[in-house]
Amino acid sequence: MDLTKIKDPKFLKQLNVEELEQLAAHIRQFLIEKLSTTGGHLGANLGVVELTLALHRHFNSPNDKLLFDVGHQSYIHKILTGRTEQFDTLRQYKGLCGFPKMIESEHDVWETGHSSTSLSAAMGMAIARDLTKADYDVVPIIGDGALTGGMALEALNHIGHEKKKLIVILNDNEMSIAGNVGALHKALGRMRSAGKYNRVKDELEYLLKRIPAVGGKIAQTAERVKDSMKYFMVPGMLFEEFGFTYFGPVDGHDFKDLEENLQYASKTDGPVLIHVITQKGKGYQPAETDEKDKWHGVGPYKIDSGEKIKPVDNKPAWSQVVSDAVEKEAETDDKIAVITPAMILGSKLEKFQQKFPNRLFDVGIAEQHAVTMAAGMATQGMKPFVAIYSTFLQRAYDQVVHDVCRQNLNVFFGIDRAGLVGADGETHQGVFDIPFLRHLPNMTIMMPKDENECQHMVKTAFSYNSGPIAMRFPRGNGLGVVMEEETKEIPIGSWEVLKEGNDAVILTFGTTIKMAESASTTLKKQGLDISVVNARFIKPMDVAMLHTLFKKQIPILTLEESVLQGGFGSSVLEFAEENQYTSVVKRMGIPDKFIEHGSVSQLLEEIHLTESQIIKNLKEIIQTKNTSVKRA
Amino acid sequence: MDLTKIKDPKFLKQLNVEELEQLAAHIRQFLIEKLSTTGGHLGANLGVVELTLALHRHFNSPNDKLLFDVGHQSYIHKILTGRTEQFDTLRQYKGLCGFPKMIESEHDVWETGHSSTSLSAAMGMAIARDLTKADYDVVPIIGDGALTGGMALEALNHIGHEKKKLIVILNDNEMSIAGNVGALHKALGRMRSAGKYNRVKDELEYLLKRIPAVGGKIAQTAERVKDSMKYFMVPGMLFEEFGFTYFGPVDGHDFKDLEENLQYASKTDGPVLIHVITQKGKGYQPAETDEKDKWHGVGPYKIDSGEKIKPVDNKPAWSQVVSDAVEKEAETDDKIAVITPAMILGSKLEKFQQKFPNRLFDVGIAEQHAVTMAAGMATQGMKPFVAIYSTFLQRAYDQVVHDVCRQNLNVFFGIDRAGLVGADGETHQGVFDIPFLRHLPNMTIMMPKDENECQHMVKTAFSYNSGPIAMRFPRGNGLGVVMEEETKEIPIGSWEVLKEGNDAVILTFGTTIKMAESASTTLKKQGLDISVVNARFIKPMDVAMLHTLFKKQIPILTLEESVLQGGFGSSVLEFAEENQYTSVVKRMGIPDKFIEHGSVSQLLEEIHLTESQIIKNLKEIIQTKNTSVKRA
Repeated sequence: MDLTKIKDPKFLKQLNVEELEQLAAHIRQFLIEKLSTTGGHLGANLGVVELTLALHRHFNSPNDKLLFDVGHQSYIHKILTGRTEQFDTLRQYKGLCGFPKMIESEHDVWETGHSSTSLSAAMGMAIARDLTKADYDVVPIIGDGALTGGMALEALNHIGHEKKKLIVILNDNEMSIAGNVGALHKALGRMRSAGKYNRVKDELEYLLKRIPAVGGKIAQTAERVKDSMKYFMVPGMLFEEFGFTYFGPVDGHDFKDLEENLQYASKTDGPVLIHVITQKGKGYQPAETDEKDKWHGVGPYKIDSGEKIKPVDNKPAWSQVVSDAVEKEAETDDKIAVITPAMILGSKLEKFQQKFPNRLFDVGIAEQHAVTMAAGMATQGMKPFVAIYSTFLQRAYDQVVHDVCRQNLNVFFGIDRAGLVGADGETHQGVFDIPFLRHLPNMTIMMPKDENECQHMVKTAFSYNSGPIAMRFPRGNGLGVVMEEETKEIPIGSWEVLKEGNDAVILTFGTTIKMAESASTTLKKQGLDISVVNARFIKPMDVAMLHTLFKKQIPILTLEESVLQGGFGSSVLEFAEENQYTSVVKRMGIPDKFIEHGSVSQLLEEIHLTESQIIKNLKEIIQTKNTSVKRA
Repeated sequence: MDLTKIKDPKFLKQLNVEELEQLAAHIRQFLIEKLSTTGGHLGANLGVVELTLALHRHFNSPNDKLLFDVGHQSYIHKILTGRTEQFDTLRQYKGLCGFPKMIESEHDVWETGHSSTSLSAAMGMAIARDLTKADYDVVPIIGDGALTGGMALEALNHIGHEKKKLIVILNDNEMSIAGNVGALHKALGRMRSAGKYNRVKDELEYLLKRIPAVGGKIAQTAERVKDSMKYFMVPGMLFEEFGFTYFGPVDGHDFKDLEENLQYASKTDGPVLIHVITQKGKGYQPAETDEKDKWHGVGPYKIDSGEKIKPVDNKPAWSQVVSDAVEKEAETDDKIAVITPAMILGSKLEKFQQKFPNRLFDVGIAEQHAVTMAAGMATQGMKPFVAIYSTFLQRAYDQVVHDVCRQNLNVFFGIDRAGLVGADGETHQGVFDIPFLRHLPNMTIMMPKDENECQHMVKTAFSYNSGPIAMRFPRGNGLGVVMEEETKEIPIGSWEVLKEGNDAVILTFGTTIKMAESASTTLKKQGLDISVVNARFIKPMDVAMLHTLFKKQIPILTLEESVLQGGFGSSVLEFAEENQYTSVVKRMGIPDKFIEHGSVSQLLEEIHLTESQIIKNLKEIIQTKNTSVKRA
């Protein structure tokens, strides 16, 4: 079958089980081949081939609303809704997005990227449906990992209360991103092991209703006997306690089982949860046998062997550099412990976990809990390191404000994937953390220029005892610099002059330093001396250096791979205002819009964060200054 | 008994039940009397008198850690730890804080204000304890309402997984702030109605273990029979599924029952949950019979009648003004619906609820869910109004970024308690919302100068179809202005000149406008013409007006009751930088520190947000400008 001919999922209704199975095999082969060159979320998508086909066969999208939680498992949905041809451009600049996207298709009714949002969104749609007297099904598809996120649990609680019709598909692949955590996971395990129950619920309810009602104290006991019987019959009692009708466990690779339970669900009033068991990586041997979930999100690979095709870059990954530096300090300081919200793999904490299994806490997808738990540890003299992506720290903003900064506790945040992240696109860009952390009292924010400075910053953070401290670092690899043996503390709030020059100064940090240095070198040849400062502390800034610069009236260019509103450059403007300095200041950074997917260099080009733009701006501010001086 | 003589809770261990009951009566009388003049959280504290005494009698604080979730129910704890004399200054400037506070006492081991944080913090402490081989109990006391907050559920899930020893006290008073919401609440109801079980758990476990093990398929069935028996015996099976040992329900006003269960709990390994039933307002008739929880947080009242002593102010409460305005629009637009996270009373939505019961959704303490549910509604053409306090919107920052702004959905945020809130203090000040919202693409932020402008803004927001829009408004009462009959749209991003003048201009909005106008009037007498602009749109700003002002080189003073870092004033600085304008700009606002409790006027005085400081700053910037001009 030619997948590119599929324009609409309606055709599925005509297919029998055998044809569906053939189509599933086609799709698997297509994904394995395509992703071997583009990369992408292979494991998750191979796991939901039959499930997605069954859903599109049973429901009528886009009238019925399918919401893919997290959304990286929506590739089959994209194929079924006419986007097969675009897979060559998957996750590339201006190409097919790796997540659901309304502008791509009317079948994408809800955009995702962060986990655990689908139940709340689905509830909103169900409310809208009932208020407007419309008629459609709302079907969130959520993984077992995403289910432990706080907002999903808030939604479960509210959905069970309101009794609106909603069909939740729990896609249980027994791991979130890598191995699942938590009591809920264990409960799911019990449900799975309870074996298959063909749905006898209706008969059971009927039976239970036949038990004669009695009064007084005995009534309560009778009620409990009923519940107890139900508990015996229905594996998903946890969900029943939450007010859902539970169906399952269902074999997520068996079309008959899926369709049968979808039919049961459609006939049931109120909220329903179908517990579907799937296997991540299904149908591709290297991914099937992948216990550590290394096939969750992949780059290109060789199909036969499953060998990953790595770009030639021997430089260490930033996450590994940070993890190693934390491990180094932890060797001599037993107060150090690491907390991760389901990102042992992404944050490269496997080695730390092997070495210090008791000092590594994976809390599951639960960023709020991670941060406040760290705060609790800090009250008792521990030195917690919270390893968290910039974009996911957004989930714990209030906990950073209320529990960490307000109590001024020694929590060390390792903010990974800070700045543009590339292929994951707008839901994952780490471009807001500076403006959402900078206005918080007691917070210190820093970013290293290279791996060696990074290890010194890690040392600095663990030595710092005056409150929270955050170190941002980018996605991807470091510069491959020589690492000093001994780590040392860097004075808080101290910047570093990398190049001297009196015609203008660039204040910048992290990834954009190289660009600034290069611009300075270029301009040197044109007779202009541009100073480059490693503004490694974003808060507090190097006030002494700023006073010197402003007093000399040197034109200042601030440069950051972060949003401009309320960012580092604004902080420099605020300093100028507070001291009523009048030097020319020009800011460069990310404008006031969401940045889509693409390679980081393409995105930087798009938003004019380039060496040539730096050069242009520097010439302008030098010109402005000279004009002003002439006017005076 | 003289409560002021209590310096340490140790004495409780010597008391018998009769003496404890007498002490409880004393404390109740003390609280009813003191709070009748100071105001405070009466209902919640009257409910936990016996519970707090029992906890301090059984445990050894501060070695054992008592963590009060939310913390407004910590008054008895404060009495027992030597702070009785300070109750005259409760919630007043430099006086006793209404929440736990580490600087007040070593017994306050965790500070709260926002709900649902105690379980995560307790888990952090338990981890620290075990890693450092210390020996103490960690005892979070959490209400049934706070338990539905997402982060509490995240913590439950992780605690059940890690099996650390932790004694959770679930203080179930059958309402969060007013009436509880959700499936969890219903499950608690079932547990309560299950009647009292003297803890037979050990015997039950013993019994269940005696059932001989069998293999194969039958093993699973046997396992389910065991679970089912357990389900029959133990009312708190929901918590047992989460990995806790459940004790209860316990009568929270019965010392014997409390002590017995605390002893059981102390002897149990791993996480324990004691389900304690208390009655809010217990022992004070007007509060006991208060179904709508109007005695949750109160001002002064007459003890005999329970009549509230209202300050003479006939002006309408801001929350009511907004609620009425939303109701007015909802009369002619059936797409409008209101969402509140457990704040029907606080946000004064009772009238709306009565009028439109189907269009008011109380989701419980679940801010994340509230915001994303609104986003889901907006995808289907509804016009959701999220009524939320500024400080609680912090909990949903990621949902605002990722689900609302990124998808550019028409969600209208009514941000209540924006600015300084007074007596609730630093955990509740609404001073961060401008910097945490301003940097988000697609967001519009506005604040009305009075009630009449407010209703026009509500009209504007519901007519606006281009993305999210937020209207901030302060705590307390409006100005009592005349309300126009017809509501009209205000052009997005348009400011309003309230006073004309060419010597300087004040750009301000909301509460600080009056102060600015008064300063302008004062300076008029001194021969200076100060313009006052109602900068009612914080984003987008009135760019045309800004160009005019900057081109005229008029000195600009920005004034906001909000933090300075990344705030409105910084936005004006950014505008000046983008256009390379050189006018003198001076910002006034809240400095980079947490602001404690006190009356708003005292707090404004403390941080120099006063008319006299405005006058001083205006004179300075006018002087600076004149000097510059002379220099040129």
